[in-house]
Amino acid sequence: MTIVRIDSGARMSQAVVYGGVVSTAGQVAKVTQGESVTAQATEILQSIDRLLTEAGSDKSRLLTAQIWLSDIQDFGEFNKVWDDWVAPDAAPTRACVESKLVVPALKVEIAVTAAI
Amino acid sequence: MTIVRIDSGARMSQAVVYGGVVSTAGQVAKVTQGESVTAQATEILQSIDRLLTEAGSDKSRLLTAQIWLSDIQDFGEFNKVWDDWVAPDAAPTRACVESKLVVPALKVEIAVTAAI
Amino acid sequence: MTIVRIDSGARMSQAVVYGGVVSTAGQVAKVTQGESVTAQATEILQSIDRLLTEAGSDKSRLLTAQIWLSDIQDFGEFNKVWDDWVAPDAAPTRACVESKLVVPALKVEIAVTAAI
Repeated sequence: MTIVRIDSGARMSQAVVYGGVVSTAGQVAKVTQGESVTAQATEILQSIDRLLTEAGSDKSRLLTAQIWLSDIQDFGEFNKVWDDWVAPDAAPTRACVESKLVVPALKVEIAVTAAI
Repeated sequence: MTIVRIDSGARMSQAVVYGGVVSTAGQVAKVTQGESVTAQATEILQSIDRLLTEAGSDKSRLLTAQIWLSDIQDFGEFNKVWDDWVAPDAAPTRACVESKLVVPALKVEIAVTAAI
Repeated sequence: MTIVRIDSGARMSQAVVYGGVVSTAGQVAKVTQGESVTAQATEILQSIDRLLTEAGSDKSRLLTAQIWLSDIQDFGEFNKVWDDWVAPDAAPTRACVESKLVVPALKVEIAVTAAI
């Protein structure tokens, strides 16, 4: 079975498809300085939509999601964006915990898996 | 191949079955105020047993586990509950790290995957 | 389908193979006192190479990686070791966040999945 790597560089691939499942790398916002949790989450979910499309999937086929917030007090604000984005009757499993991210301006990071 | 979602809501499913594998959401205790790590871990592992059963699996078919402790100093107390629960010759892979969880009273969160 | 457990104990298996995919436990360095991020990451990646070999895979078949750093400021130092290790055109997806690990001397923990 072939491994398909999407947006692949020397350090990581942004997504990998294997065995009928696509896994994304942890996605973060590109413009972060002063950006709200809402803005960052919106940008990240757009990146995930794009990666799922490239992989031949979409958010109605989500399996799992891992969410890291740099400040767990952003949970409520994040969930508003998340709940609006999730497709009807297609919510993935989810774990959401607090971890500091690569740079302090990053407030959210999300990685998902989805069926092709 | 069909995706089966268990205890599915607008935000997340508590478990998703696909390709012969069930993945659970991060499980936390429901009653947490003043509850010890032991009490929380016990309740969580009961939830996981129930989800695995609904998915047509059980703890003897565990593949992976991710454990978050809000205070890594609870590692020893947590492991007593964990070690008692794991089925003989059926230990999953495991990663256990410290992350603050959604509310301060939560001391443990666990997500697993298992073969059907 | 059979579940193959590698270096399996009462608490965890160091790797589990199922459905054509191997998942490793979170790997940490064995000798940690005073060991640098570079030394710990090097030792961990050797452990991962060994586990992948035992599972019938290798780093050219990596699918995903989860990396926890106990201090996210070690990101740059860690990446030098990581980037040298990743096989050409075979980078996995990756998420790298900060979490305290089981003992303070541990600076890095890594878990991966790979296709067999």
